[in-house]
Amino acid sequence: MMQAMLRERVAEALAQHRPGFSLPQALYVDDDMHRADLEAVFETDWLFACNVAEIKQPGDYITLEIGPNSVVVLRDRDGQVRAFHNTCRHRGSRICLEEKGRANRLVCPYHQWVYELDGKLLNARQMPQGFDVSQYHLKPAKVEVICGLVYISIAEDPPSLARFRAAISPYIAPHQPDRTKVAYQCTIVEEANWKLVIENNRECYHCAGNHPELLVSLIEFALPDDPRATATFQDIMGRAAAKWDRLGLPHRPADGGNEFRCIRLPFNEGAVSFTMDGKPACNKLLGDLTEPDLGSVRMFRVPNNWNHFLADHIIHFRVLPLSANRTAVKTTWLVHEDAVEGVDYDVKRLTEVWIATNDQDRRLAENNHLGVRSKAYEPGPYAPSEFMLNNFSDWYMRKMAAYCGVEARHLTAAE
Amino acid sequence: MMQAMLRERVAEALAQHRPGFSLPQALYVDDDMHRADLEAVFETDWLFACNVAEIKQPGDYITLEIGPNSVVVLRDRDGQVRAFHNTCRHRGSRICLEEKGRANRLVCPYHQWVYELDGKLLNARQMPQGFDVSQYHLKPAKVEVICGLVYISIAEDPPSLARFRAAISPYIAPHQPDRTKVAYQCTIVEEANWKLVIENNRECYHCAGNHPELLVSLIEFALPDDPRATATFQDIMGRAAAKWDRLGLPHRPADGGNEFRCIRLPFNEGAVSFTMDGKPACNKLLGDLTEPDLGSVRMFRVPNNWNHFLADHIIHFRVLPLSANRTAVKTTWLVHEDAVEGVDYDVKRLTEVWIATNDQDRRLAENNHLGVRSKAYEPGPYAPSEFMLNNFSDWYMRKMAAYCGVEARHLTAAE
Amino acid sequence: MMQAMLRERVAEALAQHRPGFSLPQALYVDDDMHRADLEAVFETDWLFACNVAEIKQPGDYITLEIGPNSVVVLRDRDGQVRAFHNTCRHRGSRICLEEKGRANRLVCPYHQWVYELDGKLLNARQMPQGFDVSQYHLKPAKVEVICGLVYISIAEDPPSLARFRAAISPYIAPHQPDRTKVAYQCTIVEEANWKLVIENNRECYHCAGNHPELLVSLIEFALPDDPRATATFQDIMGRAAAKWDRLGLPHRPADGGNEFRCIRLPFNEGAVSFTMDGKPACNKLLGDLTEPDLGSVRMFRVPNNWNHFLADHIIHFRVLPLSANRTAVKTTWLVHEDAVEGVDYDVKRLTEVWIATNDQDRRLAENNHLGVRSKAYEPGPYAPSEFMLNNFSDWYMRKMAAYCGVEARHLTAAE
Repeated sequence: MMQAMLRERVAEALAQHRPGFSLPQALYVDDDMHRADLEAVFETDWLFACNVAEIKQPGDYITLEIGPNSVVVLRDRDGQVRAFHNTCRHRGSRICLEEKGRANRLVCPYHQWVYELDGKLLNARQMPQGFDVSQYHLKPAKVEVICGLVYISIAEDPPSLARFRAAISPYIAPHQPDRTKVAYQCTIVEEANWKLVIENNRECYHCAGNHPELLVSLIEFALPDDPRATATFQDIMGRAAAKWDRLGLPHRPADGGNEFRCIRLPFNEGAVSFTMDGKPACNKLLGDLTEPDLGSVRMFRVPNNWNHFLADHIIHFRVLPLSANRTAVKTTWLVHEDAVEGVDYDVKRLTEVWIATNDQDRRLAENNHLGVRSKAYEPGPYAPSEFMLNNFSDWYMRKMAAYCGVEARHLTAAE
Repeated sequence: MMQAMLRERVAEALAQHRPGFSLPQALYVDDDMHRADLEAVFETDWLFACNVAEIKQPGDYITLEIGPNSVVVLRDRDGQVRAFHNTCRHRGSRICLEEKGRANRLVCPYHQWVYELDGKLLNARQMPQGFDVSQYHLKPAKVEVICGLVYISIAEDPPSLARFRAAISPYIAPHQPDRTKVAYQCTIVEEANWKLVIENNRECYHCAGNHPELLVSLIEFALPDDPRATATFQDIMGRAAAKWDRLGLPHRPADGGNEFRCIRLPFNEGAVSFTMDGKPACNKLLGDLTEPDLGSVRMFRVPNNWNHFLADHIIHFRVLPLSANRTAVKTTWLVHEDAVEGVDYDVKRLTEVWIATNDQDRRLAENNHLGVRSKAYEPGPYAPSEFMLNNFSDWYMRKMAAYCGVEARHLTAAE
Repeated sequence: MMQAMLRERVAEALAQHRPGFSLPQALYVDDDMHRADLEAVFETDWLFACNVAEIKQPGDYITLEIGPNSVVVLRDRDGQVRAFHNTCRHRGSRICLEEKGRANRLVCPYHQWVYELDGKLLNARQMPQGFDVSQYHLKPAKVEVICGLVYISIAEDPPSLARFRAAISPYIAPHQPDRTKVAYQCTIVEEANWKLVIENNRECYHCAGNHPELLVSLIEFALPDDPRATATFQDIMGRAAAKWDRLGLPHRPADGGNEFRCIRLPFNEGAVSFTMDGKPACNKLLGDLTEPDLGSVRMFRVPNNWNHFLADHIIHFRVLPLSANRTAVKTTWLVHEDAVEGVDYDVKRLTEVWIATNDQDRRLAENNHLGVRSKAYEPGPYAPSEFMLNNFSDWYMRKMAAYCGVEARHLTAAE
């Protein structure tokens, strides 16, 4: 489909949107709409890639797929984090073939063109006299590192991350995400559109009926002043807030608009971590923390990332669309870089709550996707506790309206 | 593809049809044509869903997929059979996740919206004051029950089943399909277009070369006065007809036009049931029957159902398209509701002839589909014994012509 | 997509081509472009099918798939090689269901229409009086046999093979490919566009870094006067050429333009065959050969075939596209028809070099395909040792330009 026709079809789908309701069907299930999502969102915005702990040494790299685009994120010889399109400038082969690895230089496996860790083409054997290597450096992607979280963008001119950086740093810096190590990492593939995966994460309306392990520690209220909150929650919240104020830890919701959310919230009475019994998952606390019960900083950023920062561990979630109906969700558990497995923490204990929760969410998103395919599907109204879905759909509508060159005003709930 | 373009493309394909010949290639293999089939046929007509024996008790349900549309068929608290789109009115999740089950109420697994068995939304927890549940009942599908056979339609205004009901009831009522129980049920997926699956069923020209187990009992002649019929067949037929007349059992072909076929035909000399030796499959006869040799009532209805009603058991076949080149065929064997497995019947003995036959037909349809994909494929002429394929293609041409808004006259064999 | 729109889209993609560089992205990865490849190349040109040794006896057949078109190639009762579309003229079923077999007559498995080995419909049981069998013969494909190599075409009017036949026969006739037998045969599926598979074969720039087993015997220089050639190669080449001249074996590159390539090249010092140690793979030499070290005749023909003819065995490679990103590569090893397995040759020893090489090439082509999908892919410049890729892309551009009805001149490197 030609670009102009695609934009027209997307605009038609957007026009059916009713703020406060779930999205029109085509936006969830149609292959053409998915191509538009890639172009309008994933190829223009910032995406969470990894924690710097995953690429500690020069030459350490990870790869990720943004739709059809493979990107390698690495630490260069000077310790700087860089990202490149993982496509050789000769005949286009992928260069780094693994999800993670270490390389002294990036050597294309096909004809052994050699690139420096800064992307420069060093050597292309057998190329003729006069071949100008400087014309064939790897194409760079943009990189920003915020307290050890690596965000990348393959846009020419991505939006500024300054507000995001300034807002979230005070919340997450005390947990020192850059002084961690990966305790465990896994990727699941959900047979659902990426927006259904994100929407699933943006509300805890579904928690009571689906997440028994998670609810040992997590409280379903998403705001300190949630109007539905129980007296118990208010009591827990009040005491927690007082403690965090004492410790100088910010906790009130950051002003992230529709772009991001950052907040510190308490756990259930007696729980301090995402474990089956609520007790700590790692004896060695993060950074220089000494207080084991800090609730968790919950940080979400559109379109592909949410995180929990606890006193004893951090969890990053990274979402990448594979097709209109398949989405990869990578979960990374990190502990203090000096924590010792088997002594300070046990991997099963550390991970079992969210492995169970992820699997429950996978099934929910998959059944949501299946149901949305029906001709009987009609966008339904969000519950008050689904207020963050309005943030998400407002953000998405603005992105897509800009892509189509149409007005977004009547497509969003908030002005 | 836009609707208008689709109809135009379908009309082009129809225009290539030559009555008396197999269909033009695109109608069998093209993804767009398949979308048209769903819209023109499966979303407008009646479809066989199940036998009431599969949903005996209030709350018993089955689910089925009509293209992307999941439907739940259930028995409500008053014993009435109802059908609903299996899509929650909140954010569209599937509600019933299994192929069959029992539920006191229909509770969406996502956020636990609760629907009564009559489809009414009873409770949507946490929805705000003023939320009007009456606006969010499950969307109903149409249901007709004929002697225990459940037909459903997701059309707004499906055609009348009155003629069908009146015509077939006298044939099948003596077998009391509603006083049965499921002895066995299985679904196979054929890598072939649904029309090739149906066409395969509509002729026994292929039987001699492919179905040794079936031909123990079944005679390949499809009409009492088949001009090709042997003296042996005429003799068997004559004696059978006399007996059925004596028993008051209708047997002459019903006047179903292209919509349906209903006829009682005898088995081979000495055979009374679809077994490897032709002897009975179940000692307890259906309903109040006492005569074990009644041949079989063969009832077919476009687009998705054929059946055999014998003295000792019933077999329903249900066809549902999964994509242009994949079709699900569900086979259900039913015996008298009081028959006891291991005493009155043996499942292997009851099912082995048609399990073998289904698998043979699957391979025939799959090889047919593969061959039809070739640029060398050219619609070929039907043999006289394939006369029912003319009924099928006449019916199909009329359906599709109506969908496209073109004349069907020159596309059909019969006027 | 309508034909006219398709041609327009292809023309747009062609217009982006820069001679001397790899192809524009869409031509490698787009489903519509692939359909154009089938129509413009595989349904118009000659394709290598098999060696006559695979169909030695009357009734022996092989089948192959040219996109959706199945073709059967057989030896008829008179010993002539013939090819037919493998699609019954009745309702289109595939007739021969196996990759190879033997049949006295071709009998459709569906309704047992019987075709003679010359394609004539002999008998269509139950068809009515007046049915004219002569209207329903199998549709033939064109066949040319060159020294035992069978080429077929499903084009109405394929181009002449005269120049090809005249040019290659002197090189390969001494190896008597028609007096062989199949020692081993296997098919691998590469998750890559067929053009990437062919391009991978057309250069040995990638050999040093990827093919250790192959380089025991093969020298990477592709021309006797390769400007990069080492003194060692020149020495080997000079001695080999003198010997071949003495034996009357042609070896200089044939003038195949972009259509084909045929040349005899020497192996590494001490190597005479594609084995792990370079020693012979079969003790019985081909035809009437007595000299075990003849290097190999390398014969390639667009779009789907390359071959090695050695003193002791022959290898045919046959490429057939399955979809835009999947390609089947069949490799056949042949030895003298009187060679005895276990005595004259060992299958593992005969095949292990190219089984390893094929698998290495598969991975290279697959990573190439993955990388080419990226928005960062930009056609890159060929190295001098990739000169045959210019032949291939010139040929391909001319084919596709003709298909679109546009000028090819500025799309090709050579005038």
